[in-house]
Amino acid sequence: MTDAGHGVLGIGMVGYAFMGRAHSQAWRTVSRFFDLPLSPRMAAICGRDRAKVRAAAERLGWAAWETDWKRLVARDDVQLVDVCTPGSSHAEISIAALEAGKHVLCEKPLANTMDEARAMADAAAAAAGLGVRAMVGFNFRRVPAVVLARQLVEAGRLGTIRHVRGAYLASPLIDPDFPLVWRLQAEQAGSGALGDLGAHAIDLAQYLLGDRIVGVSALTETFVKERLLPDGSGARGPVTVDDAVALVARFGTERGGPIGTFEATRFATGHKEGLRVELNGDRGSVVWELDRLNELDFFDATDERGTRGFRRIQVTEREHPYAGAWWPDGHTIGYEHTFTHEARDLL
Amino acid sequence: MTDAGHGVLGIGMVGYAFMGRAHSQAWRTVSRFFDLPLSPRMAAICGRDRAKVRAAAERLGWAAWETDWKRLVARDDVQLVDVCTPGSSHAEISIAALEAGKHVLCEKPLANTMDEARAMADAAAAAAGLGVRAMVGFNFRRVPAVVLARQLVEAGRLGTIRHVRGAYLASPLIDPDFPLVWRLQAEQAGSGALGDLGAHAIDLAQYLLGDRIVGVSALTETFVKERLLPDGSGARGPVTVDDAVALVARFGTERGGPIGTFEATRFATGHKEGLRVELNGDRGSVVWELDRLNELDFFDATDERGTRGFRRIQVTEREHPYAGAWWPDGHTIGYEHTFTHEARDLL
Amino acid sequence: MTDAGHGVLGIGMVGYAFMGRAHSQAWRTVSRFFDLPLSPRMAAICGRDRAKVRAAAERLGWAAWETDWKRLVARDDVQLVDVCTPGSSHAEISIAALEAGKHVLCEKPLANTMDEARAMADAAAAAAGLGVRAMVGFNFRRVPAVVLARQLVEAGRLGTIRHVRGAYLASPLIDPDFPLVWRLQAEQAGSGALGDLGAHAIDLAQYLLGDRIVGVSALTETFVKERLLPDGSGARGPVTVDDAVALVARFGTERGGPIGTFEATRFATGHKEGLRVELNGDRGSVVWELDRLNELDFFDATDERGTRGFRRIQVTEREHPYAGAWWPDGHTIGYEHTFTHEARDLL
Amino acid sequence: MTDAGHGVLGIGMVGYAFMGRAHSQAWRTVSRFFDLPLSPRMAAICGRDRAKVRAAAERLGWAAWETDWKRLVARDDVQLVDVCTPGSSHAEISIAALEAGKHVLCEKPLANTMDEARAMADAAAAAAGLGVRAMVGFNFRRVPAVVLARQLVEAGRLGTIRHVRGAYLASPLIDPDFPLVWRLQAEQAGSGALGDLGAHAIDLAQYLLGDRIVGVSALTETFVKERLLPDGSGARGPVTVDDAVALVARFGTERGGPIGTFEATRFATGHKEGLRVELNGDRGSVVWELDRLNELDFFDATDERGTRGFRRIQVTEREHPYAGAWWPDGHTIGYEHTFTHEARDLL
Repeated sequence: MTDAGHGVLGIGMVGYAFMGRAHSQAWRTVSRFFDLPLSPRMAAICGRDRAKVRAAAERLGWAAWETDWKRLVARDDVQLVDVCTPGSSHAEISIAALEAGKHVLCEKPLANTMDEARAMADAAAAAAGLGVRAMVGFNFRRVPAVVLARQLVEAGRLGTIRHVRGAYLASPLIDPDFPLVWRLQAEQAGSGALGDLGAHAIDLAQYLLGDRIVGVSALTETFVKERLLPDGSGARGPVTVDDAVALVARFGTERGGPIGTFEATRFATGHKEGLRVELNGDRGSVVWELDRLNELDFFDATDERGTRGFRRIQVTEREHPYAGAWWPDGHTIGYEHTFTHEARDLL
Repeated sequence: MTDAGHGVLGIGMVGYAFMGRAHSQAWRTVSRFFDLPLSPRMAAICGRDRAKVRAAAERLGWAAWETDWKRLVARDDVQLVDVCTPGSSHAEISIAALEAGKHVLCEKPLANTMDEARAMADAAAAAAGLGVRAMVGFNFRRVPAVVLARQLVEAGRLGTIRHVRGAYLASPLIDPDFPLVWRLQAEQAGSGALGDLGAHAIDLAQYLLGDRIVGVSALTETFVKERLLPDGSGARGPVTVDDAVALVARFGTERGGPIGTFEATRFATGHKEGLRVELNGDRGSVVWELDRLNELDFFDATDERGTRGFRRIQVTEREHPYAGAWWPDGHTIGYEHTFTHEARDLL
Repeated sequence: MTDAGHGVLGIGMVGYAFMGRAHSQAWRTVSRFFDLPLSPRMAAICGRDRAKVRAAAERLGWAAWETDWKRLVARDDVQLVDVCTPGSSHAEISIAALEAGKHVLCEKPLANTMDEARAMADAAAAAAGLGVRAMVGFNFRRVPAVVLARQLVEAGRLGTIRHVRGAYLASPLIDPDFPLVWRLQAEQAGSGALGDLGAHAIDLAQYLLGDRIVGVSALTETFVKERLLPDGSGARGPVTVDDAVALVARFGTERGGPIGTFEATRFATGHKEGLRVELNGDRGSVVWELDRLNELDFFDATDERGTRGFRRIQVTEREHPYAGAWWPDGHTIGYEHTFTHEARDLL
Repeated sequence: MTDAGHGVLGIGMVGYAFMGRAHSQAWRTVSRFFDLPLSPRMAAICGRDRAKVRAAAERLGWAAWETDWKRLVARDDVQLVDVCTPGSSHAEISIAALEAGKHVLCEKPLANTMDEARAMADAAAAAAGLGVRAMVGFNFRRVPAVVLARQLVEAGRLGTIRHVRGAYLASPLIDPDFPLVWRLQAEQAGSGALGDLGAHAIDLAQYLLGDRIVGVSALTETFVKERLLPDGSGARGPVTVDDAVALVARFGTERGGPIGTFEATRFATGHKEGLRVELNGDRGSVVWELDRLNELDFFDATDERGTRGFRRIQVTEREHPYAGAWWPDGHTIGYEHTFTHEARDLL
């Protein structure tokens, strides 16, 4: 996998569910397609259930496994800790890893509380002084079409931006019999649609604008207030996170800056992973949707009148970000590639 | 135009600009396609400029013309007054017409102030007792696809509705050299994007839901704060209406009712008449866009898993509202037909 | 309707079914929106059934009616004969009208046989020498987006054209119980999907290319070979026209010219009026579809790599063909407007 | 990678260009996501250039490399030979491998001549008697949406099928300075757009219909007849394959069977990998496009009138073919996954 000119970076991953599987595919794949200064080695995976973590290690191709994340962090063959657990344990694991001198890739949402997030940022800043890197897993920043949108903004192709609108519409909770899983409990999940879905839309907006939200007016709603406990007892418990959130926002420090609208929901029937971001500037507009992640719609207001229109750009050409490393022009990539790009950028 | 079984209704219209032209086409056309108890007669048109109103009468096919709306209202051959002026004169003309026993069709926005609107509602209520009808010109309620959406809601095909999102995205003001026309002055226009565009989105949402907004949190913005006076003097004056508005809203009187997001703007580059409404219920969703007004997207969550998806319904079949009166199945109509349907419903 | 500077042209129309209604709307509307040297007057309509033609005259707004087309042609107040009958009578009526010195607008297909078509062309040529005009009603040439496509071709924006593909997909005959109407009988209709639908696609291709088909290889099919007679007898008769046709074609006189593919069918489930044309040249491509007739998709290969894509042009701006005469930028028109544009071009 | 219950299958691959890279990703990935009776082992790769094949082996993760395909076929650790070379060597390698008792996966087009193809089929039939498997790499049969379409056809959801239309529109050769590579020379490539692109469209049509073409009428064209030799000499040579092909076809043995239209071209500006297939039956229709490979459009004519329309099915749910092995509902896959599914089906 590596030659004399490349170093190897041992990866230790905590968690092996959805995100663990996606990250494994990224670590497995990244050096096959990208030229990197370091090649990842899938050193060890960690989970609390011995039988399950062992099976996961074999299935996903990790060389070893642990049942205690502190042991994983302590391993000599692990130089980077990849945190794929629920948000409630992000801070503890990440800070311990950083203090042990290990690089950290932490899934979003970064943390469940502002205090935890600040402590993590402090730990990352301290570690950075020692050459230790930390990254939050906002994988959608690594979509070729999203990076192209960012390039257009930076190049001034959109002019002065007036509007941002972001949404993440999903529908997993429409059925009132869907059980009260950890994602619906504030203690573990922190928040509901806001942190799980809305965080992506807001992060993308800030990333694309290169600017931050300075004021917000929001409403949240929990449509189904009680759900069956997943223990099979037939008892019900309260849903303690938001089912949906909608907000209006101002960006930038001056009046007259962009205004934004955001919505995230788990009750948008017909939408599954309906992440969408649009920017309108006085010279152009862009629209991107996750369902068609290989495409970017771009309106160039400097095109001559009469033939102006939103261009449906297939962001699958060798000029496009990341795309040249994969297949010849015109061939699409999928959701998982965002994680491979994330691994590539980190390495 | 009429036979023995039909009465004739004389129409008097105030205004002959965009809305006046659209309404003229509606009065000219409606009895050619719909079976109606009354046939409209284009009796007289009114405008302040003698030469222009005379030319408009000839061009648009009105039998006579007036330069004073009070004379129009007083004409014996006018039984219905169609008010197509800026919002600042809606109340005065409409109330006078109602008090004169004339039916009234008034363009939206109904009025520029709440007081005016209430006075108009009172006048309409009083007139109604005498058999005099009054209607506000929310023409987009008359789009076949919109009425189909309403029918689906009423039939329970969407189930309990959780989300409404409406937007009217336009872009006429991006150019900072666009002059300070009456639509940008609060005294005449009342408001900016909110009343001109947002009113349509909010009206559609309330119409489709059969419910009203009970709480709102909004922000407005005027991006370009001064513009050239249209008098050619080179001087600038302040823009006193909103360029854009964004708001989150709650519908209905109980907690747990639908939540709504709305946006209206004149700075959405790439969008011209970007009116769009979407509803998500626990049994289905609908999406309608003015740019493709003959289509309705409908997701039926009761379709079997595996083959569910948004259906792109071409609302151009004889079963569909209004559509059967026009052309054989599959032939599209345009923007102006909404006014013909409005005239049909009024008659 | 007219002033001193305008002449009036008396129209006499034969037929009052679908095409007759559409043409009536065109004659009624055209001078309200377009500046024309002549204003049409809806002088007389003709049909064989006295009661029906009388009702049609009143409903559609014609001043008089006739039951014999020869009398219509002979009327002094008719200067233009508009032929909206089945194809089998096109030649006889049109030639008689031209010989009587009347202008002619004849619906497509021009004729049912090559001999008839040649005789009509001869009559039109002879009449042209006397200042009498003749036109075939290929209304889709009058769609703003189609004319824009033609302008792009003429301006060289598509470069050397390599491919043309046209289709008219419809589905009226899927039900095997659909009866044996005149359109399914060769004696009256001439052909089936080919003449009724395919003629539009082929005409558009030739119009857009400015070139003619020089070679063809085709297949036709009649999927349902017998249908119920419409007389209610329960008997069946043979379908004598094609249900579907598919063909490949060469354009132009030199090898290496564009190649075309065409398909027309009445068995394309899910499609109603699915007319579509696409051209690919070495500098650009265009796609137009009747279902979204206000849009043109245009790919400009001279755009910079990286941001190229099909532009969805909303052909609803004042710069666009015909569009400026209707409504402000961004408002759509419908199917019937193609006939109004046809009337405008003829006048 | 394997446990006691699984066997291992050693893979030997010939070729390491585009297809070689795609197949490598498939072999590397398949057992991480699918439960299989055999786990592939990437044993050896073969290419003629020693330095390049060595680099490819390291980059792509193959355990060994060869420069002579006969040595690869002879290796004891190779039980399956994966042929990713130009079509001219398919027959020789595949037949030798089958005769050596090795399973074969051969890229399409199967062969450059009918004689070669027949010899290969004979060899595969003989080998099959000994338990040796052979497969042609029609990877697009492995797209979840395509398999769903096939399931709908098989379940009778489309009824009697009347129409098939397939196209593969691409544009690599528009530039007349594109050089005369091997794909443009008949001796190596066999044919041009027909075999490279059209073969996919025709294969999909036959796969979806479960029926074969029985009659064809076709035209081919080579728009640019001479191109620069790739040797840098500045000399030109003749293009000996087709740039484009268009054909009409009949399926099935009886009159009245489906008719098909097909087109494949390397001159369709704006299209890159524009593979598309549509079927129309008397009970429903389906449309699939490679550019949006996760979607299937399905029209169900048995839906009630008034709410019928093409459903845009996102074929990303656990019920859908292959999809459940990847990510939670709603997450998309890309082009390369078709090869992983191919490997899965073969294993």
